[in-house]
Parts: sequence; C-alpha cells; structure tokens
Amino acid sequence: VNLLLAGDLDAAERERWRAALAAALPEGRWWTRDDLDRGRADPAAIVAAVVANPPPGSLQGLPSLRLIQSLWAGVDRLLADPTLPNGVPIARMVDPAMTAAMAETALWAVLALHRGFFAYQQRQRDGVWRTHAQRRADEVPVAVLGQGEMGRAVADRLAAQGYPVHGWRRDGTALAAVLARAEIVVNLLPLTLATRGLLDARAFAALPAGASLVNLGRGAHVIDSDLLAALDAGHLRHAVLDVFTTEPLPAGHRYWTHPRVTMLPHAAALTDPRSAAAVVARNLRALRDGKALAYLVDRSRAY
Amino acid sequence: VNLLLAGDLDAAERERWRAALAAALPEGRWWTRDDLDRGRADPAAIVAAVVANPPPGSLQGLPSLRLIQSLWAGVDRLLADPTLPNGVPIARMVDPAMTAAMAETALWAVLALHRGFFAYQQRQRDGVWRTHAQRRADEVPVAVLGQGEMGRAVADRLAAQGYPVHGWRRDGTALAAVLARAEIVVNLLPLTLATRGLLDARAFAALPAGASLVNLGRGAHVIDSDLLAALDAGHLRHAVLDVFTTEPLPAGHRYWTHPRVTMLPHAAALTDPRSAAAVVARNLRALRDGKALAYLVDRSRAY
Repeated sequence: VNLLLAGDLDAAERERWRAALAAALPEGRWWTRDDLDRGRADPAAIVAAVVANPPPGSLQGLPSLRLIQSLWAGVDRLLADPTLPNGVPIARMVDPAMTAAMAETALWAVLALHRGFFAYQQRQRDGVWRTHAQRRADEVPVAVLGQGEMGRAVADRLAAQGYPVHGWRRDGTALAAVLARAEIVVNLLPLTLATRGLLDARAFAALPAGASLVNLGRGAHVIDSDLLAALDAGHLRHAVLDVFTTEPLPAGHRYWTHPRVTMLPHAAALTDPRSAAAVVARNLRALRDGKALAYLVDRSRAY
Repeated sequence: VNLLLAGDLDAAERERWRAALAAALPEGRWWTRDDLDRGRADPAAIVAAVVANPPPGSLQGLPSLRLIQSLWAGVDRLLADPTLPNGVPIARMVDPAMTAAMAETALWAVLALHRGFFAYQQRQRDGVWRTHAQRRADEVPVAVLGQGEMGRAVADRLAAQGYPVHGWRRDGTALAAVLARAEIVVNLLPLTLATRGLLDARAFAALPAGASLVNLGRGAHVIDSDLLAALDAGHLRHAVLDVFTTEPLPAGHRYWTHPRVTMLPHAAALTDPRSAAAVVARNLRALRDGKALAYLVDRSRAY
C-alpha cells in the first residue's frame, strides 16, 4: 500500500515518524511529496496521506486518495488549505500519550495557579521570603472549555485532585455564566469560526477578579490585546499560554516578558510517535478492510 | 479546661488559630505564656499546651501538663528545647488539609521536572522558542523518602498519575539502591540524628546523571555544599527546595539565584487552622476522657 507522509517535520522528526510508522504498519510504502514530484512514485498509487500541517497544495493531484490522517490533534491549519481535496475523509489524531501529556500540563498549570507557585518563583527572583495563604483544591473552581477527548481528560484529571470542575462546550450553557463561577479557565476548544476570538474583553470581564487563564487550545481563541489589558489592569492574575496567534511567538512580543505570563513553546502535548503510529495503523487497516474510520473530522464543524 | 497556646505565631495567625480552636473546642480556656507570667492565669491549672515551635522554655513550670500538642507536623525544633518537660506526651499534627497540600506541591514539582517546565520558564526569560522531547509519566521513576502520613500520601498521588514510585524508609533497603533507579527524589523524611545530612555527596553520586531533588522534609537533611556541587557539575539537573538549614534563607545564599534551584519559603504545606483545630479538639477530648491519644511522638525516635 502506497502512502504519502507530508508535513512540516524536520529531518530527525521525519525519520522518527517513518521508523514508528514502519514498525506499526510493515505493509506500508512511504513516499514524500518530493518523491511524487520527481517521479519516483506514481501519485495515482497513493491511497492515504499521513500529514502534519503539510504545506498548502501538498495533497493536490492524488486521484486515488481515500484518507487524510493527521498526526496532530488540531486540524485548523490543515483545513485552511484551499486546495485540500473535497470529499476525502480527514481523521484527527487522538493519541493516548498526547492526551495524557495535555492532562499533565493542565494539572501543572492549575496546581501552580491554585497554590501561587508562579508568585513564589517571582519572589525567589526578587529575593523575598514570604508565604501567602493556602487554600484547599475544593475551594478553587476550574472551568474547562472544550469537551472533546482532551477537554474531558483534563476535566477528569482535575476533578480527581479535588477541584470543582465545570466543563463547557460551545452549544451548552452560556459561557459568561460558567466563567463567572471559575477562578481558573482552561481552554481546550477546537479552533473554528465559532470559537475564534471567544476569549475577549467580554469573556475576561465575566471572570471574577483574580482569575487566571490557561490556554492550551489555539492562540486565535484569544484576543491578545484584550488579554494584555486584563492582565495589566490586574483583573486577571496570571496567564499560562502554550499557543499563540503567530508561532513561534515573535521576538519583542509583550508575552515574552510580561510578569503575569508563563509561556510554553506549543509544547503542552506533543504527539508521541510510538503510540500515535499504532493509531495511524489502525485507521489505515480499517480503510483497507472497509471498516469504520476513527476520529473523522466533520468539515462543516471544522473539527 | 485551661490550655496554653504558645508559638512563633504573629498576631494575625494567633487570632486565626484562637478562633478556629474556640470553634472546635468551646469548653477550652486559652492562655498565653504572657498570661501565665503576668499572673492572669495559674500555671498549675494548665492541662495541655498547643504549640507551634514555641520559644525554648515556654513549657517550663506547668506541673499539671499532660499533653503537648504540636500544630506543626515536624517536631524537631520542639524536641531540641532542653527544657521540654520529660514524661509529658507530645503529639504531632496530622492535618488532612496539610497532607493534601504536601501531595499537591510534590505533584507540581514532579510534573515540572518530568515535563521540563522549569527549563521552558528559563527559555521564556531567555527569549528562546524551542521544544524538548516529551516522555510519558511511566518512564520517569520517582523515589519518595519517608513513609509517614505525608510520604505515603505523596507516593499514592504520584502513582495515581502513572509515575513508577519507590517508597523508602530508613530501616528498609539500602538508600543507594533506591536512588540508583530514581530520576526524581522527593524527600519527606523526619529530621532525626539518623537522617540529618543523609542527602550528601554520596547520595547524589548514587543518583543517575540528570536526576532531580525535591526537598520537602527539612533543610538539615541536605549537605548544602554537596548539593550545590552536584548541581554545578550538572550531575543533578534541578532542585526544588522548600526547607533550608537556616530559615528564612539568608540573603546572598547561592540558592536564591542558582539557575537550577527553584525555592519555596517553607510553604509546601501549611497547617490549615480549620481542619487542624478539629484534630486538636479530638486529642484534647481524648485526654479528658482517658482515651488513646493520636499521633504521639516517640521521643527515642524523635518523630
């Protein structure tokens, strides 16, 4: 079976993926877009593409293509490619190791915000020895925006530590009502037309004073100027940001040096080639056997 | 019933404790050492003392004293008072809120070390956008030194997140063998003659290269010069330190500014007056009723 591996992977990542995929699916023959363009393989022979944010146009001219399998959980950049072939099913990655990593990152951020550990780190830099009040987890309500695989995993992990967790999904109750009861907001929504810019001045105003934001979704969920204004005003205590409107975050952006911002370089949860290759192999075998494909994207909902 | 409340509490803390204790034990009459010294209360009427690292000598001259109840879990400073009356039972504090707080702090530190979040925070300060490899929790073995209430709670919480946890107690297997298999060491031992200075150059050498230390026990468990040498040599990757040989940590100490050290001001787990007052009340009522007292210190073991 002839397969295309396409994406913004560096050479080492590409080899790690190729090795993991070859181990999980020995019957696969893997080709790159460069192989097709140079005539080393026949584009008409490619039945599935395994992609990691491929450059726009990567999936054109593949008449036999029957599945686009993403290696990443978020498909917003993939769907933004205007040349993406219509009618070909797209599957997101749901990798158990990535889901666990997301729950770890969310838990780390929530523990740090709840217990004031970012403030203690600042005091260390300032040379100040001073404790602050300690509250129990059950006194710190957390809102988790997004109820997909990752949102649910995060909500479950936080609830298991004793936090009162309110999960929210777009077609549920009013967002403002959920935010009004939350001290920490963890965003894990998919990026769609309906969720873009959802975390704006109005949303921040709905939060109680002293609340914090953990953005593990997409940078474009947040109106950056509104977030900076809420942090500068002290209405928001802190933001932990893994994702940004432009990535890498440009040098000189205020987030880099803002004392109330803790940044990760889009590292909250990486797909683990070892477990993800097995997920890819299962879907490719389901395709071969005419069985149901897992984690298909609804293009009308964009996730 | 006449009770002494003594300790290094500031006025606000003293009032918070007095209010919580009065609510939990309405039959108690609370006095300070100052009250006794000024003749406002009869020292011979005091049947129990509730103490938080009281100044040495605070418990002298109390002929009816039948219980010394500590508000703190660690009693090493209390036991170091040469004037401490012999033969009076001493009870440690085992506060469920404090135990939960300790598990939260240990989990935050282990998550940060496992996932490299301290390194990401350093990269933010350096303006560097770069991810590092991500491992699963089951690939990061953790040793928990100390198997008391807090050591067990920490070990259970970490194991629930998927970390392979090895608990160690002083009279168990050889420490070096446990350290050799650990990537993260969490210290929750009591401070005794047998554990003082246990974390020295030999212990650090037993750890694999790149291991990290989380000290939530006592500063005197660590030979500071050995720890700094192991960090400077890069053999240890990072240390999270809540406790210090001298507290507050003196200005100018290298821990304040060491890039591989994250400090807390002895804030990993504070006793919560709300739940701890109930623990005190239970022990004082057991004393009155001639029932068994909880969490008694074995003076020969010093914890």
